[in-house]
Amino acid sequence: MTTPDQSSLLALHQAFRDELVDAGLVILGSIPGSFGRSGEFEAIIDGLNSAISRAAGDLAPEVLRFPPLFPREAFERTGYLESFPNLTGEISTFTGDDRNHAALLAAREDGADWSHFLTPTDSMLVPAACHSSYPILTGQLPESGRTLDVSGYCFRHEPAIDPARMQAFRIREFVHAGTPDQAVAHRSEFLSRSISLVQDLGLEVEAVPANDPFFGRAGRILARSQRGESLKTELVVRLYGDSHDGTAIASGNYHRDHFGSHFDIRTANGNVAHSACVGFGLERFALALLRTHGLQTSRWSQHVRAALHL
Amino acid sequence: MTTPDQSSLLALHQAFRDELVDAGLVILGSIPGSFGRSGEFEAIIDGLNSAISRAAGDLAPEVLRFPPLFPREAFERTGYLESFPNLTGEISTFTGDDRNHAALLAAREDGADWSHFLTPTDSMLVPAACHSSYPILTGQLPESGRTLDVSGYCFRHEPAIDPARMQAFRIREFVHAGTPDQAVAHRSEFLSRSISLVQDLGLEVEAVPANDPFFGRAGRILARSQRGESLKTELVVRLYGDSHDGTAIASGNYHRDHFGSHFDIRTANGNVAHSACVGFGLERFALALLRTHGLQTSRWSQHVRAALHL
Repeated sequence: MTTPDQSSLLALHQAFRDELVDAGLVILGSIPGSFGRSGEFEAIIDGLNSAISRAAGDLAPEVLRFPPLFPREAFERTGYLESFPNLTGEISTFTGDDRNHAALLAAREDGADWSHFLTPTDSMLVPAACHSSYPILTGQLPESGRTLDVSGYCFRHEPAIDPARMQAFRIREFVHAGTPDQAVAHRSEFLSRSISLVQDLGLEVEAVPANDPFFGRAGRILARSQRGESLKTELVVRLYGDSHDGTAIASGNYHRDHFGSHFDIRTANGNVAHSACVGFGLERFALALLRTHGLQTSRWSQHVRAALHL
Repeated sequence: MTTPDQSSLLALHQAFRDELVDAGLVILGSIPGSFGRSGEFEAIIDGLNSAISRAAGDLAPEVLRFPPLFPREAFERTGYLESFPNLTGEISTFTGDDRNHAALLAAREDGADWSHFLTPTDSMLVPAACHSSYPILTGQLPESGRTLDVSGYCFRHEPAIDPARMQAFRIREFVHAGTPDQAVAHRSEFLSRSISLVQDLGLEVEAVPANDPFFGRAGRILARSQRGESLKTELVVRLYGDSHDGTAIASGNYHRDHFGSHFDIRTANGNVAHSACVGFGLERFALALLRTHGLQTSRWSQHVRAALHL
């Protein structure tokens, strides 16, 4: 059942999406939440990446960029399959011979399913940019821990009309692994820098306690506990007015020893490392700017345009 | 059976890969052909993108950037499943309830396969950046046709040791749809600009007739015919010496009416459109520069560094 409130929100989603399409900023395809981006849209993303780099620059994080693939064995260690199976993306391919291929094509010709001719590969799609960094952090950390600046295309299977709810999107993220104190300090420092950056770009942003959308009945307990222990903070911009929930354009997460123990990351004195990350949803950040300042970047304020090299 | 020639090539692949890792330019994971890129590596990619934009700039193509996903229904129309089933990437996810989820986790706990708990989605991975553009070109073209500047992460399932043979990589591509003459002229113009660009960056490049790696017995016939009709030209750099085949860092393809007919693209006078594309493998282009000029970009010539904003 759709409540009046939900249907008014859906109308707002649809209207914003249509405006973006009419302005030529995004090009829809037949997959909800996976769209083409115009040069103008990408210029905003490039500008955001520069502005984020400047905001973090003096901390000199190690820069790493990742493809959308993630090894199955590492994926299994992240706990994602337990917590978000419904968002998962697994990759299959065809490994058969000429004869299997002919059978596949015949099935397709008959309008039958051909997926069962494919075989799962060792690759998954990565659901969060920081996940790609944990296998790299395995081992012993220096005294000061390690801070990584990571980014890449992520996948989450959550088809939606809302242009800010994507299946394929980029995250830019700052990850720290170290002692519990270092991890907590990292989150706090980067959240505060992120709020300044977002405000400097003219967005009204609120930092709110949040939880991930854990799956199923057990997930409800995990969500309550994550929220109760203040493990997740989201930076929220109200894209659709005050009567609807805002959209998180960034979030800061303290994972305690979750990734440290699953990926065997140890502090300088041999303890299991703690980790934290602060990440921006780059497309959402761009959409929040477009929603707030209007769809014509040429009319944005001189200050915002300069900050984004537009 | 591995011939002496193949095993010496394999040794060269492994040595180059190890050098790249030792220099910190790439970070290997457990998926062959899917690796992390350092900030220095990405700076080369950014520089190449700028240089490619400059080389094409006066032609003012429409700029479009795409996520790695591609709709299944469009994928089926490209003919990829017929010609390259073995390179295909299909995405599955979990659509079950709490009970199915418990069964999935129990199977995994037992070390059993859990992939059969997943369901295919409507998304594939896109194997070539230009494929994302054909659904957008559907309809009637203007007199002069349309030229698109497209780019995105592509997937091809071909695990290999060779760092230049990737499963996840970026293509930057210029696509034209129009009359047969326009398509052929586009390919020729962009191939010639591409050769100049590659040479200006100090690479020894050769334009050679080529064919795609069509699958199976029928594929051998398709490959011969593609080569016989000069439908594909590759720009090849010899990464591993003169005694081994070179590596294609770019290619120009004339598709005749293949995409025009499958995606209902029509010329201004109503005929089925012809198309052509000229695309760069961005990571391969970067690897060719590293192989030729050395692994320290700070030691590259002033001319090349300036051209790439390094």
